[in-house]
Amino acid sequence: MKNTFGQCLSVTLFGESHGEAVGAVIDGIAPGIAVDKNEIERQLSRRRPSSALDTTRVENDEFSILSGVFEGRTTGTPLCIVIKNGNTKSGDYTYGVARPSHADYAANVKYHGCEDYRGGGHFSGRITAALVAVGGILLPALEKKGILIGTHISQCGKEKDRDFDNILNDIVTLKNASFPVLGEDAQERIANEILAAKNSLDSVGGATQTAIYGLPAGVGEPWFDSVESVLSHALFGIGAVKGVEFGLGFGFAPANGSRVNDPIRTEKGRVWTETNNNGGINGGITNGMPVVFRCAVKPTPSIAKEQKTVDFIKNENTTITVGGRHDPAIVRRICPVIDSVAAIAVCDLLAQRYGTDYLAGEEPVCSSV
Amino acid sequence: MKNTFGQCLSVTLFGESHGEAVGAVIDGIAPGIAVDKNEIERQLSRRRPSSALDTTRVENDEFSILSGVFEGRTTGTPLCIVIKNGNTKSGDYTYGVARPSHADYAANVKYHGCEDYRGGGHFSGRITAALVAVGGILLPALEKKGILIGTHISQCGKEKDRDFDNILNDIVTLKNASFPVLGEDAQERIANEILAAKNSLDSVGGATQTAIYGLPAGVGEPWFDSVESVLSHALFGIGAVKGVEFGLGFGFAPANGSRVNDPIRTEKGRVWTETNNNGGINGGITNGMPVVFRCAVKPTPSIAKEQKTVDFIKNENTTITVGGRHDPAIVRRICPVIDSVAAIAVCDLLAQRYGTDYLAGEEPVCSSV
Amino acid sequence: MKNTFGQCLSVTLFGESHGEAVGAVIDGIAPGIAVDKNEIERQLSRRRPSSALDTTRVENDEFSILSGVFEGRTTGTPLCIVIKNGNTKSGDYTYGVARPSHADYAANVKYHGCEDYRGGGHFSGRITAALVAVGGILLPALEKKGILIGTHISQCGKEKDRDFDNILNDIVTLKNASFPVLGEDAQERIANEILAAKNSLDSVGGATQTAIYGLPAGVGEPWFDSVESVLSHALFGIGAVKGVEFGLGFGFAPANGSRVNDPIRTEKGRVWTETNNNGGINGGITNGMPVVFRCAVKPTPSIAKEQKTVDFIKNENTTITVGGRHDPAIVRRICPVIDSVAAIAVCDLLAQRYGTDYLAGEEPVCSSV
Amino acid sequence: MKNTFGQCLSVTLFGESHGEAVGAVIDGIAPGIAVDKNEIERQLSRRRPSSALDTTRVENDEFSILSGVFEGRTTGTPLCIVIKNGNTKSGDYTYGVARPSHADYAANVKYHGCEDYRGGGHFSGRITAALVAVGGILLPALEKKGILIGTHISQCGKEKDRDFDNILNDIVTLKNASFPVLGEDAQERIANEILAAKNSLDSVGGATQTAIYGLPAGVGEPWFDSVESVLSHALFGIGAVKGVEFGLGFGFAPANGSRVNDPIRTEKGRVWTETNNNGGINGGITNGMPVVFRCAVKPTPSIAKEQKTVDFIKNENTTITVGGRHDPAIVRRICPVIDSVAAIAVCDLLAQRYGTDYLAGEEPVCSSV
Repeated sequence: MKNTFGQCLSVTLFGESHGEAVGAVIDGIAPGIAVDKNEIERQLSRRRPSSALDTTRVENDEFSILSGVFEGRTTGTPLCIVIKNGNTKSGDYTYGVARPSHADYAANVKYHGCEDYRGGGHFSGRITAALVAVGGILLPALEKKGILIGTHISQCGKEKDRDFDNILNDIVTLKNASFPVLGEDAQERIANEILAAKNSLDSVGGATQTAIYGLPAGVGEPWFDSVESVLSHALFGIGAVKGVEFGLGFGFAPANGSRVNDPIRTEKGRVWTETNNNGGINGGITNGMPVVFRCAVKPTPSIAKEQKTVDFIKNENTTITVGGRHDPAIVRRICPVIDSVAAIAVCDLLAQRYGTDYLAGEEPVCSSV
Repeated sequence: MKNTFGQCLSVTLFGESHGEAVGAVIDGIAPGIAVDKNEIERQLSRRRPSSALDTTRVENDEFSILSGVFEGRTTGTPLCIVIKNGNTKSGDYTYGVARPSHADYAANVKYHGCEDYRGGGHFSGRITAALVAVGGILLPALEKKGILIGTHISQCGKEKDRDFDNILNDIVTLKNASFPVLGEDAQERIANEILAAKNSLDSVGGATQTAIYGLPAGVGEPWFDSVESVLSHALFGIGAVKGVEFGLGFGFAPANGSRVNDPIRTEKGRVWTETNNNGGINGGITNGMPVVFRCAVKPTPSIAKEQKTVDFIKNENTTITVGGRHDPAIVRRICPVIDSVAAIAVCDLLAQRYGTDYLAGEEPVCSSV
Repeated sequence: MKNTFGQCLSVTLFGESHGEAVGAVIDGIAPGIAVDKNEIERQLSRRRPSSALDTTRVENDEFSILSGVFEGRTTGTPLCIVIKNGNTKSGDYTYGVARPSHADYAANVKYHGCEDYRGGGHFSGRITAALVAVGGILLPALEKKGILIGTHISQCGKEKDRDFDNILNDIVTLKNASFPVLGEDAQERIANEILAAKNSLDSVGGATQTAIYGLPAGVGEPWFDSVESVLSHALFGIGAVKGVEFGLGFGFAPANGSRVNDPIRTEKGRVWTETNNNGGINGGITNGMPVVFRCAVKPTPSIAKEQKTVDFIKNENTTITVGGRHDPAIVRRICPVIDSVAAIAVCDLLAQRYGTDYLAGEEPVCSSV
Repeated sequence: MKNTFGQCLSVTLFGESHGEAVGAVIDGIAPGIAVDKNEIERQLSRRRPSSALDTTRVENDEFSILSGVFEGRTTGTPLCIVIKNGNTKSGDYTYGVARPSHADYAANVKYHGCEDYRGGGHFSGRITAALVAVGGILLPALEKKGILIGTHISQCGKEKDRDFDNILNDIVTLKNASFPVLGEDAQERIANEILAAKNSLDSVGGATQTAIYGLPAGVGEPWFDSVESVLSHALFGIGAVKGVEFGLGFGFAPANGSRVNDPIRTEKGRVWTETNNNGGINGGITNGMPVVFRCAVKPTPSIAKEQKTVDFIKNENTTITVGGRHDPAIVRRICPVIDSVAAIAVCDLLAQRYGTDYLAGEEPVCSSV
């Protein structure tokens, strides 16, 4: 469905980098969920450029909710949230010279030159602001149901963060972190990688690790709507994500079953596994353990170094030195985006499994207030 | 949509390991596509257990097409293909003792104990036979349009195969290979890994690499229906797949943009990239280069070594030594499954882009014969 | 989705009139629902030609369930049911001469002559046998939840049946009726209309009225997934249905609001309307009253009288006198088809609203047996 | 998909009557389609209250396009159009007393009292302004492809308009008509019906007839995606529509096949039918004749006469005399809404059949300008 994701709870994205606004429509959300504008602002601030590590484009992310919220709570009908664009410098972009590894050329073929090319148009990371705003509504709702989601930078350049350990504690740590890492010295080491890239007019890639805590067992489907299918579908919607692995992921390739099969244990009716190499999913269905996955994040394509490319209007070879304002790495700013995308997928899976009202199940019905 | 994948061309799966049959319904396929039963049989034979490296379960894969084919060609209406089950030994399975890393426990929670547990039921790899039969119809149709798909074992245990090099040649090589590898000594090295696992009553994981050659530029969508989203959704439907990465994938994490951005070149109207680190996809849309991706394949969960687990009927801890007939590694047999799943996703993307008739575009219309 | 209907519970149809079989795959059905082959057979017998009023084609409707049922209950995974074709006389059909008001010409354009034209192929009413078999599973499950569905012939030719009165009683009456009418002398009057058409080598149209009793209030969506949208989408899937109206339907056109608005009453917490001109639906959402709708059923296109038509192979005008075995009216045999289609739509709406397990909610979980 | 309609071209609706705005997101529209704000305004003006026959609520319909249009043409990425609300008088509405035949009670059950009840909230006809704005983009695009859509009032109260005769001429007539009727004296007769209802503090129902001219043969699907299924699904999304019939519709019930089967003729390669009782659709697929259908439109539920109802907050019987500003009949204002909804469905069917670019096929590609 192109720019819409989700079967029971769905999100539709719209907007271009230098257009009037970016935004999203959430449909199928349970009625009665508290919508806290501070929480939306808090999520947006996590994604916002904030330091020497990020682009110098200033984004105020002034948003308004056009529909679907009444007296501070979701109505259950479509919620449209719009974030105005500002501080755009369209002069920085010239049409026809494709930025390597960016969507410019592919978009030109697909849209026959009708695409809004300014700042990457609809392909810009700017659109992820709308995803993060959606997360500002869904993440607190999930938390009230005991489901918490957190993402940290697991790698950037040659530096790595430690893996999730005590997942609940780690997620709480990340919620309040200005820099989303878990290990003690990880921030400094990773920040240095990013600064090194910046200083050499370059960019650097990375990887993230996400944990979803509190998902009940029995969610998801075998085959085409496995939890892995649904999550990866949503995650690969983010332009910079080029790999997704669950649990041990590619770490399974060299391993023996006897070493990586997760031993199952039970006590007082509770069932768990001693290890969680399967990332909380067996046969496409949650097993009650935390869902854990990693995303590969490619380096920002736009760099100030000269690169070989083509001018697809003139049909000739040329070079490009990308001006404009760009992030030397997006692995930090992508963390709240991944949290939000995961929240969307999880809310949809829960709505499929338990019906429309699940997410607001503990909330008082509004008319009784 | 649970067991259905695809928006314009869709495939619906059904069946259980020890039930009467497994099968699939293809809907939205263009009319007039030649259906060659030998080609279906050829694909099924690639997946079939065939040597000491595989399970000893003999699968004849006797199939019949119930609908959608008339005088040897697709009608354009739903094509149902059914593969009978045989050689089932249900006595090998006991209900209640969960096999670690298999779907047994998660399925029990989801289906409240109503699931057909024999041989893994609907979660069994047996269902992939239906996918491969579908591939036997779609892969030759794609080939007539100049689109070729090939998958090789890129890793198994500690041994690796070389990457795709000359993609068109390599795909042709794989089409006729009894063992899907590219490097000269890869078969022997990888076969030894599998035999070593088998001899120690264990299993071993692996990874595959797939190339899709000939996809035109401009296919796919930004955001939620990116080519990566669509392909990964389908691929993660296969139970053993725990990771999917495109192009360099997780290899992007330590890299600088200046090194991994793909330089673009043009000559005589043709546009290509000098490297293909993005795996043929930018911003979710094909750029005309081959689409290249890897899948992580976990070790077969069922092993003959004793493992800790629970009996979820008795609600107690126990151990399991899995009897029955199992593959020490499924990385070989999964290759035609991945080819077929990729073919389904590609046919759907093409039907979305170019309409219902695209796949049969070069075929003579039937009534003119 | 072409031959698939439903978002949470879905049904996929396949088959041709003179092919090997017709069938359906149900996906998303709750686990633990009792599947009674006698009930399926009973539904199929309601649709079967049974008297001088029907075609002389003998249909045994021998069916088998290939998957999704284990120990007499649904597993929750896809249920494939197949009904073999027999007693086909393909010689009765000549390709190229279009039967007026039938799909022959439109299908030829769409499928470029690749369609299986024998007996109407995939467009044949034969495929409705698969729908009715699905009803044989879903209707009893709905009944256990207190939801009953019944359809009667409300008109055939110039003769009419009385409308639903005491809906619950009327549905029970229809369940056991050999001829689906409510009024005392309706059977004789309507049968005479059909016989008169038959005797003049002609066919005759009709209309049906359906009631769905017991649907809770609050099901359905505003706008595009209104209960009317979902039901009509499914009902217009039946080839002969050319009109669908809810409640008063086209009877609203001449009416004043003061006369046809349904007055609302309440007592002891129960809410109802004094009339039910809205057919149980307001703003697309059930209001707790029975859902009532009518379908217009066109006369069987195939008649033994000479008609003007074209030979689309020879590209010339010609005439046709349709041989073969046809029903002079299908308004009787369509009643169980409409019951089944309504059941599919209702089960999907309930699964969307209340989640996967709703339909089996009162059933014991299987593993506890 | 709740508030989203369409598989290849889709429209997502949002907004409430007295909220900040109503709007729509169009996704999957071909790139390069000219967007003329005057044409959008022209369509909106057709729907706007304009005389003594309509509500006195003044709607300026000030709209803005937030995304998806660049240099006057569609980009191919999501187009969000927003129409601000104004002139709202929320004081006119009291929560708890259900307006008979309106969605108030059903919505309360569904949304647990969290719904925005002011002015009917998301159930208000106000949301159809967004649909009509979408029509202002799609209808001119269809017209460039030779596909024209027109709707007239076929009945209001006891008065009827003549049926479509010369369809192409009639559609052109309707395009420029201030009052959408075809017969010479129809406007006066129908206007008098509406005024009579208004003067007696009542409302009156009606019916519309729509023709779609120029659709190629071979569009649509057998069974669940028949043209009738797709169109009716969209049309029943409009709250006031309670019946949809194609061609002769319920007029088939008393008819013999020999009289209503459409004789087929051919000359110089063109194929047509002498009558069009099937409304241009056979077996769910277009046959090249105009698609013709009728919609039943119920009387506006809100009337100034006293009606029996319940207060669902106090749980008691009461009466209501609806104040506020309402239309005595909506059958005039619904005509452009039906045109727009039909355009959405037709664009989706064409995109499914012919691919993404069909609608802009004759347009110059943008980059070549």
